[in-house]
Amino acid sequence: MQIAIVLFDRFTALDAVGPYETLGRLPDADTVFVAERVGPVRADTGNLALVADRTLAEVPRPDLVVVPGGPGQTAQMDNDVLLRWLRAADATSTWTTSVCTGSLLLAAAGLLRGRRATSHWLALDSLARFGAEPTSERVVTDGKYVTAAGVSSGIDMGLTLLGRIAGDEHACSVQLLTEYDPQPPYDAGSPEKAPAHLVERARAASRFILS
Amino acid sequence: MQIAIVLFDRFTALDAVGPYETLGRLPDADTVFVAERVGPVRADTGNLALVADRTLAEVPRPDLVVVPGGPGQTAQMDNDVLLRWLRAADATSTWTTSVCTGSLLLAAAGLLRGRRATSHWLALDSLARFGAEPTSERVVTDGKYVTAAGVSSGIDMGLTLLGRIAGDEHACSVQLLTEYDPQPPYDAGSPEKAPAHLVERARAASRFILS
Repeated sequence: MQIAIVLFDRFTALDAVGPYETLGRLPDADTVFVAERVGPVRADTGNLALVADRTLAEVPRPDLVVVPGGPGQTAQMDNDVLLRWLRAADATSTWTTSVCTGSLLLAAAGLLRGRRATSHWLALDSLARFGAEPTSERVVTDGKYVTAAGVSSGIDMGLTLLGRIAGDEHACSVQLLTEYDPQPPYDAGSPEKAPAHLVERARAASRFILS
Repeated sequence: MQIAIVLFDRFTALDAVGPYETLGRLPDADTVFVAERVGPVRADTGNLALVADRTLAEVPRPDLVVVPGGPGQTAQMDNDVLLRWLRAADATSTWTTSVCTGSLLLAAAGLLRGRRATSHWLALDSLARFGAEPTSERVVTDGKYVTAAGVSSGIDMGLTLLGRIAGDEHACSVQLLTEYDPQPPYDAGSPEKAPAHLVERARAASRFILS
């Protein structure tokens, strides 16, 4: 199974690496990081680059597409090269997936019309503009479309989809090997759980980014 | 605060990216990925490379050191360039940390003697050979040494240390922005929780790697 993970300037690294580290451990996975050009692609902090090994054009028919999000997603919303590739790849994919604001790119490509989908909690409302039905669950499956909430949720999405594709036992083995037994030191991982003033501060800061 | 994240051939990507995505969001973080040589460093699957932007020699005195693990750790256990760098960096660091089998590299450098430390559950016993006290907690702090269990535990380690350095409120904000509200679809993330036959299978397979 060929898994294409899309990179673009100022993506969020964990959005891409969570699904990579889980889905990439499918028994027959052929994971490939793709971008418009091969070579290093800088993540949003500017301090880390992941390498795109193939161009989008070189990987026209992946079985599974993963689109990460991040602050750079905004600049991709009218990138016809990427949106055309997403539509073409989706036409033959078995699964089309996203993490975080990656779902806005799937939506901008017209792939989520009438479908339940999720995104980073700060971007959830934006999905509706493209005809998707925003759903504040951590992992949302609608047909072959699997969207995950913000950043770290790509790990849960990866394990969920791994179970669907390779069976519960294989998914459990990957969870065991990646020792995914989360014990966050705080309970502030969603807007429902975090202190209200931190949620409000994040919303205020995001108005400059998501509009 | 300068944060050096060490890369080496066949490291596990999430080991490095978990702390990067959390600790790297310290208000004054200057995160730098380092390796013996600059350029792409391939992770254990062979399908992903992260870029080392600086050599070890160029970053002699980081405030915070992060050492990931992965199958490639074994080959580094007698790499004097790396072990000497770890000892020198540790001499002036404020925090010296690891994820997964990265703790075996800290131990091989002689930095964990008499200290409580953890590692990937499959490698925990090996820590004792270097005079450390293996501790099967997810995040173990002993003085300035913070070691995390396998792969995904680097996220918990990163948030824990973020709280120590920048305060609980900042750590909660980072947890909220990375939407770290884990909802694994299975409960198999530790040898105590996973089905016994999967634990045994993983142990059997690991005998070829960890010896």
